[in-house]
Amino acid sequence: MTQFIGVKELGQLVGTMGPRRFLKRLVEYLAEDFSRWEKFDKVPRVASHSAIGVIELMPTSDGSLYSFKYVNGHPSNPKQGKLTVTAFGVLSDVLTGYPQLISEMTLLTALRTAATSAYAAKLLARPESRVMALIGTGAQSEFQTLAFLELLGIREVVVFDPDPAAVEKYRRNTAAFRLTVRTARSAADAVAGADIVTVCTAVKGRQAIISRNMLKPGVHINAIGGDCPGKTELNSDVLENAEVFVEFTPQTRIEGEIQQMGPDFAVTELWEVETGRKAGRTGAKAITVFDSVGFAVEDFSALRLVHDLMEGRGKWLDLVPELDNPKDLYGPLLGGAAMGAVA
Amino acid sequence: MTQFIGVKELGQLVGTMGPRRFLKRLVEYLAEDFSRWEKFDKVPRVASHSAIGVIELMPTSDGSLYSFKYVNGHPSNPKQGKLTVTAFGVLSDVLTGYPQLISEMTLLTALRTAATSAYAAKLLARPESRVMALIGTGAQSEFQTLAFLELLGIREVVVFDPDPAAVEKYRRNTAAFRLTVRTARSAADAVAGADIVTVCTAVKGRQAIISRNMLKPGVHINAIGGDCPGKTELNSDVLENAEVFVEFTPQTRIEGEIQQMGPDFAVTELWEVETGRKAGRTGAKAITVFDSVGFAVEDFSALRLVHDLMEGRGKWLDLVPELDNPKDLYGPLLGGAAMGAVA
Repeated sequence: MTQFIGVKELGQLVGTMGPRRFLKRLVEYLAEDFSRWEKFDKVPRVASHSAIGVIELMPTSDGSLYSFKYVNGHPSNPKQGKLTVTAFGVLSDVLTGYPQLISEMTLLTALRTAATSAYAAKLLARPESRVMALIGTGAQSEFQTLAFLELLGIREVVVFDPDPAAVEKYRRNTAAFRLTVRTARSAADAVAGADIVTVCTAVKGRQAIISRNMLKPGVHINAIGGDCPGKTELNSDVLENAEVFVEFTPQTRIEGEIQQMGPDFAVTELWEVETGRKAGRTGAKAITVFDSVGFAVEDFSALRLVHDLMEGRGKWLDLVPELDNPKDLYGPLLGGAAMGAVA
Repeated sequence: MTQFIGVKELGQLVGTMGPRRFLKRLVEYLAEDFSRWEKFDKVPRVASHSAIGVIELMPTSDGSLYSFKYVNGHPSNPKQGKLTVTAFGVLSDVLTGYPQLISEMTLLTALRTAATSAYAAKLLARPESRVMALIGTGAQSEFQTLAFLELLGIREVVVFDPDPAAVEKYRRNTAAFRLTVRTARSAADAVAGADIVTVCTAVKGRQAIISRNMLKPGVHINAIGGDCPGKTELNSDVLENAEVFVEFTPQTRIEGEIQQMGPDFAVTELWEVETGRKAGRTGAKAITVFDSVGFAVEDFSALRLVHDLMEGRGKWLDLVPELDNPKDLYGPLLGGAAMGAVA
């Protein structure tokens, strides 16, 4: 049988242990998987584009477990009360090829994206960072806040979003967090005193929400929203004057902020910092950028954590037949329908 | 909610309507989809290989529906009581990207492989074909038999398999079919008087189970078992003297019988025969070969049929969250866990 983790089960799992503890554990799993990055099968996403959106499959394997995520992107979905991005994923045993676990990943992707941001910031931001600017208070914003509160020690968040209803929703959802929240009147105002700048807007096209002249020395930029061809959030002068870190270079050159730069623009992959192969931040005054687009290995880590935490609880699905004789598929499944066969 | 069709539901669906009627409907769906072949997004399978097996994803889309199949191939699985090949699949709405249906596809793949064979034979075999040789009585054999009985009017099957237990299992499972079954002492003996030759062995490596000198003029060969690099069943002299038909040429050149031939070896795709763009069999004495490897569009047809037949019955899974406000993922799913967040 294949274990099934629906929206309800995942919400209960994360809710019961507390989202902060879940994020902390997830960062441990991410660090473990990034430290053995070279063991993973890595391919670009397999995309099926239509006029209105995209459906992608994101597979990877470490030789012992295999995972893939199904994820869609449909910007016009909210008009009909649906989510722009939804996802689900599967974890399988490489030894038998049998699926072990199928899980909702809309909520899980929000958690893994926030955990990956916090993980990158732990590697790259100044340890004394306490104030975070948050540009965009959409679906990802509370997850980012919680991850930075728990893992970086952020104590104050200065938010900006042109939609007052989104800011109000953010304030409501974070009311119980041990955190000071201030509202800024512009992105520049929000960024002015920040140690960390998280940019997660849904605005389409080539934007320049953050420019070099807004930033104080030593800031770390957590750039989430520029994550597909034609969608960026940072002015190129930020990238030109920063140390830029990515997940998987071939994918980020197409989808990330660095799509604005030439193919030789220098970047460092996170796993190289994790393993000590390359330097992270080179000094207290450097500007660091994590150009995040999301990669299959992070989904692998998230599914692996959920699998470990669930310990066999949840629902079970008969996704694969259990047969006494592997040469006899017809008999046990359709043998009883023999009359139908001669009717 | 996403509709779930497990092994139990699919067995009941096919059992209730009768496998013969199901296969007949499936051939209608295949003919419909092959006739609009050019509308489909077609990519080679996305494979993740390990020392012991392979896990593959097979996506396709017609611009209105999207499907993918997950399928593994692990030859040593039967040693531990597991199936060599298992599969499941998903059907989605291209307009929203939301998954509509998740279905077991181990049984469904056996049905679609048999239906595709019968569909190809209807296009290529002599209409007066009544006797079929069946080489290999493994998991696929009864499905092939039923499809050819129903759709081609086969009345006699001559079987050969070196494993007497497999032959006995085949005889038991087909006892209720309106069919004469004879057992041959060799592949050559089985093939001698056959109008159609179905080869579906599990033997690995480059085999030459069927050679040109065994075949009478006008025979149609349904070659199922040669379906991955390094695994073939036909002697190359069969291919050299036959008219060869395939599903999707780029995939078949790697996986099919024609991996033995040069890259320019002439083949015709089934959809070209379906649409009248190219000829099928050129004469009553020609030898035709369907070099079957299995392609994503066939799984699409099978999932589309199951979706239509189930008419909303079956189980339902909360694979995707249903939210009032697409900007608020945190509140409804984790808002109740706020205490966990500050603990």
